[in-house]
Amino acid sequence: MTRIVPTSDPHRPDPLPRTVYRARGGGEVIDCHPREVSQLLAEGGPLWVDIDSTVRSQHALLEKVFHFHPLAVEDTLNPNSRVKIEEYEGFLFIIIRGVSLASGTDDPYDLETKDLYCFLGSNYLVTVHAGPMESVDRISDVIRRSPDLLNRGVERVLHAILDDTVDAYFPILEQIDAFIDGLEERVFVEFDDTALRDLFQVKRLVLSLRRYLQPSREVMNVLTNRPSTLITPEVQIYFRDIYDHVLRINDALDTYRELLSSTMDSYLTQVSNRLGTTTKALSLVATMSLPFVVVSGMWGMNFSHIPLSAWPHGFWLLLVVQLGLGLLLLCYLRWRRWL
Amino acid sequence: MTRIVPTSDPHRPDPLPRTVYRARGGGEVIDCHPREVSQLLAEGGPLWVDIDSTVRSQHALLEKVFHFHPLAVEDTLNPNSRVKIEEYEGFLFIIIRGVSLASGTDDPYDLETKDLYCFLGSNYLVTVHAGPMESVDRISDVIRRSPDLLNRGVERVLHAILDDTVDAYFPILEQIDAFIDGLEERVFVEFDDTALRDLFQVKRLVLSLRRYLQPSREVMNVLTNRPSTLITPEVQIYFRDIYDHVLRINDALDTYRELLSSTMDSYLTQVSNRLGTTTKALSLVATMSLPFVVVSGMWGMNFSHIPLSAWPHGFWLLLVVQLGLGLLLLCYLRWRRWL
Amino acid sequence: MTRIVPTSDPHRPDPLPRTVYRARGGGEVIDCHPREVSQLLAEGGPLWVDIDSTVRSQHALLEKVFHFHPLAVEDTLNPNSRVKIEEYEGFLFIIIRGVSLASGTDDPYDLETKDLYCFLGSNYLVTVHAGPMESVDRISDVIRRSPDLLNRGVERVLHAILDDTVDAYFPILEQIDAFIDGLEERVFVEFDDTALRDLFQVKRLVLSLRRYLQPSREVMNVLTNRPSTLITPEVQIYFRDIYDHVLRINDALDTYRELLSSTMDSYLTQVSNRLGTTTKALSLVATMSLPFVVVSGMWGMNFSHIPLSAWPHGFWLLLVVQLGLGLLLLCYLRWRRWL
Amino acid sequence: MTRIVPTSDPHRPDPLPRTVYRARGGGEVIDCHPREVSQLLAEGGPLWVDIDSTVRSQHALLEKVFHFHPLAVEDTLNPNSRVKIEEYEGFLFIIIRGVSLASGTDDPYDLETKDLYCFLGSNYLVTVHAGPMESVDRISDVIRRSPDLLNRGVERVLHAILDDTVDAYFPILEQIDAFIDGLEERVFVEFDDTALRDLFQVKRLVLSLRRYLQPSREVMNVLTNRPSTLITPEVQIYFRDIYDHVLRINDALDTYRELLSSTMDSYLTQVSNRLGTTTKALSLVATMSLPFVVVSGMWGMNFSHIPLSAWPHGFWLLLVVQLGLGLLLLCYLRWRRWL
Amino acid sequence: MTRIVPTSDPHRPDPLPRTVYRARGGGEVIDCHPREVSQLLAEGGPLWVDIDSTVRSQHALLEKVFHFHPLAVEDTLNPNSRVKIEEYEGFLFIIIRGVSLASGTDDPYDLETKDLYCFLGSNYLVTVHAGPMESVDRISDVIRRSPDLLNRGVERVLHAILDDTVDAYFPILEQIDAFIDGLEERVFVEFDDTALRDLFQVKRLVLSLRRYLQPSREVMNVLTNRPSTLITPEVQIYFRDIYDHVLRINDALDTYRELLSSTMDSYLTQVSNRLGTTTKALSLVATMSLPFVVVSGMWGMNFSHIPLSAWPHGFWLLLVVQLGLGLLLLCYLRWRRWL
Ligand SMILES: [Mg+2]
Ligand SMILES: [Mg+2]
Ligand SMILES: [Mg+2]
Ligand SMILES: [Mg+2]
Ligand SMILES: [Mg+2]
Ligand SMILES: [Mg+2]
Ligand SMILES: [Mg+2]
Ligand SMILES: [Mg+2]
Ligand SMILES: [Mg+2]
Ligand SMILES: [Mg+2]
Ligand SMILES: [Mg+2]
Ligand SMILES: [Mg+2]
Ligand SMILES: [Mg+2]
Ligand SMILES: [Mg+2]
Ligand SMILES: [Mg+2]
Ligand SMILES: [Mg+2]
Ligand SMILES: [Mg+2]
Ligand SMILES: [Mg+2]
Ligand SMILES: [Mg+2]
Ligand SMILES: [Mg+2]
Ligand SMILES: [Mg+2]
Ligand SMILES: [Mg+2]
Ligand SMILES: [Mg+2]
Ligand SMILES: [Mg+2]
Ligand SMILES: [Mg+2]
Ligand SMILES: [Mg+2]
Ligand SMILES: [Mg+2]
Ligand SMILES: [Mg+2]
Ligand SMILES: [Mg+2]
Ligand SMILES: [Mg+2]
Ligand SMILES: [Mg+2]
Repeated sequence: MTRIVPTSDPHRPDPLPRTVYRARGGGEVIDCHPREVSQLLAEGGPLWVDIDSTVRSQHALLEKVFHFHPLAVEDTLNPNSRVKIEEYEGFLFIIIRGVSLASGTDDPYDLETKDLYCFLGSNYLVTVHAGPMESVDRISDVIRRSPDLLNRGVERVLHAILDDTVDAYFPILEQIDAFIDGLEERVFVEFDDTALRDLFQVKRLVLSLRRYLQPSREVMNVLTNRPSTLITPEVQIYFRDIYDHVLRINDALDTYRELLSSTMDSYLTQVSNRLGTTTKALSLVATMSLPFVVVSGMWGMNFSHIPLSAWPHGFWLLLVVQLGLGLLLLCYLRWRRWL
Repeated sequence: MTRIVPTSDPHRPDPLPRTVYRARGGGEVIDCHPREVSQLLAEGGPLWVDIDSTVRSQHALLEKVFHFHPLAVEDTLNPNSRVKIEEYEGFLFIIIRGVSLASGTDDPYDLETKDLYCFLGSNYLVTVHAGPMESVDRISDVIRRSPDLLNRGVERVLHAILDDTVDAYFPILEQIDAFIDGLEERVFVEFDDTALRDLFQVKRLVLSLRRYLQPSREVMNVLTNRPSTLITPEVQIYFRDIYDHVLRINDALDTYRELLSSTMDSYLTQVSNRLGTTTKALSLVATMSLPFVVVSGMWGMNFSHIPLSAWPHGFWLLLVVQLGLGLLLLCYLRWRRWL
Repeated sequence: MTRIVPTSDPHRPDPLPRTVYRARGGGEVIDCHPREVSQLLAEGGPLWVDIDSTVRSQHALLEKVFHFHPLAVEDTLNPNSRVKIEEYEGFLFIIIRGVSLASGTDDPYDLETKDLYCFLGSNYLVTVHAGPMESVDRISDVIRRSPDLLNRGVERVLHAILDDTVDAYFPILEQIDAFIDGLEERVFVEFDDTALRDLFQVKRLVLSLRRYLQPSREVMNVLTNRPSTLITPEVQIYFRDIYDHVLRINDALDTYRELLSSTMDSYLTQVSNRLGTTTKALSLVATMSLPFVVVSGMWGMNFSHIPLSAWPHGFWLLLVVQLGLGLLLLCYLRWRRWL
Repeated sequence: MTRIVPTSDPHRPDPLPRTVYRARGGGEVIDCHPREVSQLLAEGGPLWVDIDSTVRSQHALLEKVFHFHPLAVEDTLNPNSRVKIEEYEGFLFIIIRGVSLASGTDDPYDLETKDLYCFLGSNYLVTVHAGPMESVDRISDVIRRSPDLLNRGVERVLHAILDDTVDAYFPILEQIDAFIDGLEERVFVEFDDTALRDLFQVKRLVLSLRRYLQPSREVMNVLTNRPSTLITPEVQIYFRDIYDHVLRINDALDTYRELLSSTMDSYLTQVSNRLGTTTKALSLVATMSLPFVVVSGMWGMNFSHIPLSAWPHGFWLLLVVQLGLGLLLLCYLRWRRWL
Repeated sequence: MTRIVPTSDPHRPDPLPRTVYRARGGGEVIDCHPREVSQLLAEGGPLWVDIDSTVRSQHALLEKVFHFHPLAVEDTLNPNSRVKIEEYEGFLFIIIRGVSLASGTDDPYDLETKDLYCFLGSNYLVTVHAGPMESVDRISDVIRRSPDLLNRGVERVLHAILDDTVDAYFPILEQIDAFIDGLEERVFVEFDDTALRDLFQVKRLVLSLRRYLQPSREVMNVLTNRPSTLITPEVQIYFRDIYDHVLRINDALDTYRELLSSTMDSYLTQVSNRLGTTTKALSLVATMSLPFVVVSGMWGMNFSHIPLSAWPHGFWLLLVVQLGLGLLLLCYLRWRRWL
């Protein structure tokens, strides 16, 4: 079982965690030193701390400053933690899986995933991930440009990040749509064997996405519908929007699964059909040979007395006989519905 | 992700939204200017506004006059929004999918769908769609001819529109029924390969319809059974009628799916059977050739001493021998149950 | 969508609806004129009215005398209404599907179905159907012979009719049992191709029955378990008996489905096996021909110098050689496990 | 629909029902005359009556002495009643299905089943079955040997009988285990066709057992968990033990179903593989014949001028040519990946 | 049905059960004699007793000292008891299945399982197993080294043992992952027949693991979510962690099942494809032979008058004719799409 191991480089200071704090009076504190986080937390204004779990001094904040439950902290070091939502005393703990198609590799169906861990308290949001994470970067940019979002409460920041993470499925869906169109063309029109391998790989991609998305449904359902002191009904409407997107993605994945199944079935039906047709052609050829094998064989035997052998038109007569026998045989097999 | 983009043509005024208003005193206002809608809304009589989301000034009413939640307004611009029902403070938001068979294209199985977005308040109904929508046109005609329906309340107008939208499934079901009858004929009687492609397409059509209908079940269930200040129990009985239709359509689609599966299975069984029969015929032909290949081959060899070659009846004897060997072989294979 | 159209023959009076009424004092009124029904209804004794929906004056009673909800009345004119139970104010509305095997047609698997619509009020039962219906006739005879059943309350009359309707499944189940036994014989023993078509048809018959029965489960469940002012717990025990029968029929249909699937699988396995065996026989024959084709072909060539051609025993030597080569080849293929 | 018909032999008295009664003072009454049962019942000590439903005077007790509901009494005459539990006023009615492998028949997979009907009141237990039933015999022996079990209450007697009836599944499971081991050996190692028929029959046996067991789950669940005035929580713990056994049997049956499926799949895969291999061998043989058919055929034609025919080494040259052509052809087909 | 039979060796004393007791005053008692357990239990400090059910004097403690319900004690003697959790008066009874890959046997897919039975009271934990059990040994070592865990309560000891038992699935999952990678290589690249047998065995391994894990879900769910006087909400958070692991293992097993299915499907598709290709090659060879069989046969017949036989270039002309006919035939079959 691989684990994320927070490390510390002795030769240069650890990078600072990203922090944004809005004081009650209106002042703003950005990217403060870990030591100050504890003080900001006590002041009670909305605070967002974004932690890179591979940096030891950042990860230490979870335990030392926020005093999160050790089981939750343990989960942030497991890159394969399940997508889930858990209530602890005083905070909600959410794990969501970010997805993207790996652009660096040859294989176009390579899915890259990374877990995002969120701690939501009454006045703080802590996000944790191993290394950089695109959706967090984007929301961080928005908040640094305008204080608006953070002013609405940390739960709206959580919403923005989760929304961005779930939206990352849509371009992948479009890519899959394109893959399937191409595959149908190759299977139905070109009858291309190699298409099958791709077909299996796209199917596996769809199944993977579904596996990560499925538990997100439960997470969004809880955020939308379970009464909570941390999320007001007004904000729950925003989570309902993400919930709706998750359902839509799920619908699309189901559709893709059906399309791929149908394409596969259709391919196998075509293989069966072709095999039947080929076998029929083979039988036809064999049947047409039969009278020649029989009659020519007979007259090719070395006997001193061979019927018709001296008759000048014997050769032509037998040609007619052979063709006639072939025709008769063919009609017989057709009549017996064997061909 | 495609989006509906409301536009405005600078050279001529935007078309007006369709509006029908019944004053408490009994007067009626029809197709008023967007500016007046706000006033009618305040007066409190039943008001229906029908908006084409591709027209900018019409779509603007949603936000500026009705002050709907931005998430709901955002959904009206997404042509692929999921079928759903959502409660917001003061109004219900419903998305339903209208379906029809595209008459313009060559492909007879082409399904056209368009989302209809409905906002139901205590005294107003706002319907939104991109471009013209048949079911809305029909109900609009009814209301313009007689004030009866609107007098019974805006929820009865909503019922009429949803009922008409769901009823649009029935002619498609009849069409599918006809398709399946034709396909069974082609598959079972004519054993027509090209029927398979159609079969897969009808199956896809059925699956699509089911995908759109399935969430309608939940919508109608909520409208029928969940207590609401906007819909009285007397009106809920009407929504129960639509719910019943949705269930009936669902039953029919399930039946079609089973019939198509069964037709497909039957086809594949026939392919298997034919392959077996053809192979058997092939074996028979090969078996019948064997003694001739063997015996004629032997006597066709150029030896100076060939048994029976000088005997006058040798030719005929060997013919008998060959036929006898063939028969023997055949019996042997039959006895071993190999043929 | 077909509809039942109530008609009236101008040349002769409409047939009367069947009515049975038991006055509180003990008197009985049978088959009264529609005009009197309204009065009997007001008197409050148990009243059963049986209406043929194809007769206009009978069908009119639903609206004019009983004032049933228009949506329920509308359903009685749709011959394909779904099996269901609906509560309206003051009455229960039940639709059940009667089934029978069509005796008039050639096809032994032809299922005939007819909807029965029941309105149960506190002191009345109204049954509606298009044309004659056997189960209603039978219960009508019972009641006319003895007043006992009606005295126990209209809900017991409803029970008797529903029980009789559901019992009609049992002879069909026995018929299906006989079909399946015959099919297994034909498939397993006689390996009869045409059996497959029947197999598919019986499967379709089973699926149809299941489709009609499935919703009956819900109906009986509601009648048995939902508290109601119209049905006392003592009578609910009787509906539980029908519920139990519905479950038993359902068990049997599931069993038949499994048996048919298994028969089909077994058939396909046999087809596969036979194909393999036949191909093996074909290979054997081809293999046995090979040395003769090769050797006889060689010695049949017209060269002036052919080895052994002048040796007196050449012919017999080569016969041995050919047989030996055939044996060797056979052993080789067996050893490679190709045959 | 077969029915149990209670009969009475006019020439000799009906056999007595088995009865065991424990008086409050400590006395015991065993196998009393039907007339006395009514009196024992009134005295209020624990009473067990075991009735053979094929004996008229015994079966009459149900109605005349115990006054059970006619619907429950009717069920005891139907040998195919569903496994179920029903609450009536004053008693619980339970139907369970006893199973055993028929030892008398040739077919080792023959399942024999018999319904057991139990009426549990506050101070009595009545068991009903058609003809002798092993599990009841066994418990009867226990009780006659020692009064212990009956002293603990009639519900403990019910538990003992149901436990014994469910335990009868375990030896059948072991038998099935042995069947499957034998079948795997025959299918995987001996590739035995006839094994398939047995495989289908064992599968059918497993499905039958599951059909009878499935509803037992619900019965035991109710006995274990539903609060009842007839069964105390202390005794419910004993029914939970049977419930657990039912779940265990169900697990085992699921496992067997999977194993049989897997064996079947594996068999079909092997059939496919063999067919492919055989066809390949066939192609190889045909390919090897081709150059000989062509070349020997050419040189076997009767022309006066045949190339090389007079050259002494022509024969051997052509042999080399034919073998070379065969090799070339083989390489070509391999290179095209056709073989 | 095998049973664990506790035995006693008359020639040497029974081994002692493992016991750890922490007195309220702070003292610790380790591995005391069975006679003292009863006294420790009464003192009320946290007590863990670990019992080997194959040793008679140890197993007797369950009944004689702890007075557990006889049904629970009976279950500890059945090595195939179902994974479950049951509430008895005063204690919880939990059965969990420990798994490991058998290292001693040749077959790498051999799964070894052993039941662990746990009795949790307010101040004691009793664990029972037949022979040594690794997870219990490990936790025992931890507790003997430091009193920390036992001080936190017996429910934390239970958590530690269950956690260790469930964690044993992870290395097996990794092993399965490696198996599947190897199998895919063998199936896709090497097209290895013997891989299929392994594939079926890994599938069976996955299904077995799932069968044992599935009920663990329910057990952990109850421990996590059902309010209990024996487990505080603070400790339930720890059981939630195991629950989460169980879900993760379940996800992984589902994934493996899908991968194995997909590999199998892909294999079968390849078999079908190859069969089609081989048959096509076979048809091609047969078709190419046909004109030679026909024409050479004709001219090989022994007639005195054979067309062209005296013409010097006859031989070469016919060669051209034969090749031409072959080409024509090929084109015809291609045009008819038979080849
Ligand atoms: Mg996951
Ligand atoms: Mg979004
Ligand atoms: Mg958004
Ligand atoms: Mg999950
Ligand atoms: Mg939205
Ligand atoms: Mg959709
Ligand atoms: Mg869609
Ligand atoms: Mg298949
Ligand atoms: Mg949808
Ligand atoms: Mg409608
Ligand atoms: Mg309507
Ligand atoms: Mg209706
Ligand atoms: Mg239908
Ligand atoms: Mg239905
Ligand atoms: Mg229907
Ligand atoms: Mg009945
Ligand atoms: Mg009855
Ligand atoms: Mg009954
Ligand atoms: Mg049954
Ligand atoms: Mg049953
Ligand atoms: Mg038992
Ligand atoms: Mg027992
Ligand atoms: Mg037990
Ligand atoms: Mg098990
Ligand atoms: Mg097991
Ligand atoms: Mg763990
Ligand atoms: Mg752990
Ligand atoms: Mg289980
Ligand atoms: Mg964890
Ligand atoms: Mg996973
Ligand atoms: Mg995963």
